[in-house]
Amino acid sequence: MSANHSLDYGDLAFIYIDSKRKYLVKLGKGKILGTDKGFIKHEDIVGKKYGDIIYTSRNVKAYILKPLLIDLLQGLKRVTQIIYPKDSSLMIYLSSITPGSLVLEAGVGSGFLTASLANFVGDSGRIIGFDIREDHLLKASENLEKLGFDKRVELVLGDIREESIVVDNIFDAVFYDLPDPWNALNTAYKALKPSAPILIYVPTVNQIEKTVLSMRKHGGFIDIHVYEVLLREYSVEKNATRPYTLMIGHTGYIVFGRKISA
Amino acid sequence: MSANHSLDYGDLAFIYIDSKRKYLVKLGKGKILGTDKGFIKHEDIVGKKYGDIIYTSRNVKAYILKPLLIDLLQGLKRVTQIIYPKDSSLMIYLSSITPGSLVLEAGVGSGFLTASLANFVGDSGRIIGFDIREDHLLKASENLEKLGFDKRVELVLGDIREESIVVDNIFDAVFYDLPDPWNALNTAYKALKPSAPILIYVPTVNQIEKTVLSMRKHGGFIDIHVYEVLLREYSVEKNATRPYTLMIGHTGYIVFGRKISA
Amino acid sequence: MSANHSLDYGDLAFIYIDSKRKYLVKLGKGKILGTDKGFIKHEDIVGKKYGDIIYTSRNVKAYILKPLLIDLLQGLKRVTQIIYPKDSSLMIYLSSITPGSLVLEAGVGSGFLTASLANFVGDSGRIIGFDIREDHLLKASENLEKLGFDKRVELVLGDIREESIVVDNIFDAVFYDLPDPWNALNTAYKALKPSAPILIYVPTVNQIEKTVLSMRKHGGFIDIHVYEVLLREYSVEKNATRPYTLMIGHTGYIVFGRKISA
Amino acid sequence: MSANHSLDYGDLAFIYIDSKRKYLVKLGKGKILGTDKGFIKHEDIVGKKYGDIIYTSRNVKAYILKPLLIDLLQGLKRVTQIIYPKDSSLMIYLSSITPGSLVLEAGVGSGFLTASLANFVGDSGRIIGFDIREDHLLKASENLEKLGFDKRVELVLGDIREESIVVDNIFDAVFYDLPDPWNALNTAYKALKPSAPILIYVPTVNQIEKTVLSMRKHGGFIDIHVYEVLLREYSVEKNATRPYTLMIGHTGYIVFGRKISA
Repeated sequence: MSANHSLDYGDLAFIYIDSKRKYLVKLGKGKILGTDKGFIKHEDIVGKKYGDIIYTSRNVKAYILKPLLIDLLQGLKRVTQIIYPKDSSLMIYLSSITPGSLVLEAGVGSGFLTASLANFVGDSGRIIGFDIREDHLLKASENLEKLGFDKRVELVLGDIREESIVVDNIFDAVFYDLPDPWNALNTAYKALKPSAPILIYVPTVNQIEKTVLSMRKHGGFIDIHVYEVLLREYSVEKNATRPYTLMIGHTGYIVFGRKISA
Repeated sequence: MSANHSLDYGDLAFIYIDSKRKYLVKLGKGKILGTDKGFIKHEDIVGKKYGDIIYTSRNVKAYILKPLLIDLLQGLKRVTQIIYPKDSSLMIYLSSITPGSLVLEAGVGSGFLTASLANFVGDSGRIIGFDIREDHLLKASENLEKLGFDKRVELVLGDIREESIVVDNIFDAVFYDLPDPWNALNTAYKALKPSAPILIYVPTVNQIEKTVLSMRKHGGFIDIHVYEVLLREYSVEKNATRPYTLMIGHTGYIVFGRKISA
Repeated sequence: MSANHSLDYGDLAFIYIDSKRKYLVKLGKGKILGTDKGFIKHEDIVGKKYGDIIYTSRNVKAYILKPLLIDLLQGLKRVTQIIYPKDSSLMIYLSSITPGSLVLEAGVGSGFLTASLANFVGDSGRIIGFDIREDHLLKASENLEKLGFDKRVELVLGDIREESIVVDNIFDAVFYDLPDPWNALNTAYKALKPSAPILIYVPTVNQIEKTVLSMRKHGGFIDIHVYEVLLREYSVEKNATRPYTLMIGHTGYIVFGRKISA
Repeated sequence: MSANHSLDYGDLAFIYIDSKRKYLVKLGKGKILGTDKGFIKHEDIVGKKYGDIIYTSRNVKAYILKPLLIDLLQGLKRVTQIIYPKDSSLMIYLSSITPGSLVLEAGVGSGFLTASLANFVGDSGRIIGFDIREDHLLKASENLEKLGFDKRVELVLGDIREESIVVDNIFDAVFYDLPDPWNALNTAYKALKPSAPILIYVPTVNQIEKTVLSMRKHGGFIDIHVYEVLLREYSVEKNATRPYTLMIGHTGYIVFGRKISA
């Protein structure tokens, strides 16, 4: 989807009125975007281009933007805790995934990390995403389809703790967001290509410890590191620049390791 | 380069002895990797595969790993301050670049961010990288060639503050690591596709303020945000898990914005 | 006031029902503490001791605690932004004030820092507190009287930027919480004992820079440092310990220096 | 010791040449302070006053400062890990100690926290400090004597885990820096006045969890909180203000609670 084609039904658009009024819409016939600053008919967006301006029924200016990855995620529905951009960005970077990569993910949850992975592996890449809950997979599937990422992802209902669920030595990276990743280390080890990385996300310090000690005991992982990312946002005003008063003080921790020959 | 092909001269390998002895090597005839734990002849690595084990001349075990992006960067030479993974990962994520993206970068410096961008846009993508110093471009060129990323990058000697240096409306994202990004906003605005993002890295708070105030005054950018990323690493031991004593307390700040029709 | 004397009218008590229901009360005849868990008559607290238990009208257990400094502050009224414990604690520690110290403070605002200073200098110490707004001083006076700290504090209506307002070389420490501390450096320099410290609190980075550059230009201060304190609180549960999700990401910065002979 | 009396043998002085050359000296006959910028004879400091200037044998300017608490601590010898100002300042503030307070401390270690406590309780206060290692107490004793704080402190060789070692209900606050504070909760509970606070310092997350769960199980403590303090220092230059690159990423955690009637 080029950035300067004329928008049509089925396209995604990110409608930006101000910093508190941002909406991801999939253009549909007869549909209307309602806001407290007035409404916008989808049919009035059709034919316009990304970057164009449109006015609400109350004559408030809105921008039609091409959705970025962060906008796509903001437009999705959540049935689970999600992994935030500050964490998924580092996980993806450390994983070294690249266009065409084959990635194993478990558990998929609402599909937020899945969508990020899909953005970076591209059409030639593929995510195999596991979850033990069918309702999660249904929500993830719906979310990924909305974003047009469904062709890059294969969702599988199953328990990643069962080694037999994966093929040997084919994955460029493994991403885990599980309550008990230590029970799925054998599967990750089996699935990863030789020397490929695993990235594990856990919310508590206890899970860090149990995960890392299990990786060490397993023996098939080296270069194990644990990271925590803190993100601060700044308020900028002339002669009065400072961080915002409130910040997210915690989301989770990232465990990194690489498969080696045992 | 598949993860399980037999290694040959010209291939990159990441030799891991322990957490303090990690080496990026490009296999060359007659070459030797010297370490304080003994040496390894490149000819002995040829024919092996990623994930295999090799022993130094002093019989110390080493792992032959497929280099990840972070390993590639660690193996490069620096002539400038670089942007660290904690920052470049968030910049790349926020930019929403994807396989095939066309990216403008200035200043290239030693090419570390360039290499990261090249990893994520893939063979179908392209980075146009500007710098006003020829010695920087030579070093960046050397670094990118070592990593095999040179075909994805076009390096240009020139001053990004001159608008005429770029083509209109073609870039999916702009990345700036400049001492005075406020002087290059017109160029970025001209170069970006409608609604596409700009990511700016600056080390001081004063640069944040001047950049953001200039973006607001320019009028062509919305959704402006400033972020600071703090990364902590944890030491994990049974019943004694805690962050490491020392951490990097500061690198720089990230400014984000999107082009709109003025 | 000993911790185990029988409470009487005029005494302060900190009534603790749970982490969200904490009340500082000054016992008064006929007074009632109302809460959404029922009420407590002050007359029923009289005669009890710190540490005792009391029940509300709805039979909910409450603890009668001797108020700590942090409880005293929580019970005060604010007409201004206050300095939080994470910052005032470090300022006080760095200042090295001790029982009997003579301290200059400006501007007093609602008197929160004043109260903390009063706690640490004791009955033999003294705080001379300046503010240019009478309404602030009235509120501060009311707050300090409620806590019983009024005898340790002398409040002065006046502009600390006027050097003539202070006596030479008598203060053990100067504390500033002013919008333009750089305009009051001469006063601080004059007021401080030789080699004594100044502690300045400012909310923005711009104020840090202007303050420190002015101190350097003034020439009468050495060992200048700027600190920022980040405080995280942890949620502790068996096998699920982690920081709380939300934290205060910013309050202000602390500038430290010492007077020297010019 | 007034700030403007003439210095004599036995007095403490803090000699400041620059930010990397700071020395705590106790003036002694025939003694010399040697530095890489030349030496200073103690006899040449005698008769001068705090705030005066003196020159080294190589004619480098030095300042004679009255030592602040932080200078006193910097001049001490360590046989153990110490509690840093960023942590001890918050612990002291939360404890609400004041001139005249009676404080229980265990383990004393090198006496750094003890010295800070002594500064704030003053001549009318008293610290009873326990440690199970005689060598620690000897070092602490030597340190406290050097600072002139020995009269405010009583050091006791003994195991704080034995309840019989303390008198009931007399302490205004308890400070613990122990490997296993959960084994000394009964003693703290017994020793504290009704409703008085306990402050516990531990370096690992596991100790947080074990301590807090033990306090909850004990039942005699409420209002339990766990804090972590991060301190950043800023480099200030005109138009180039930013945090320093390196910071201390971790020291320890602070656990707070208050005694209630069980």
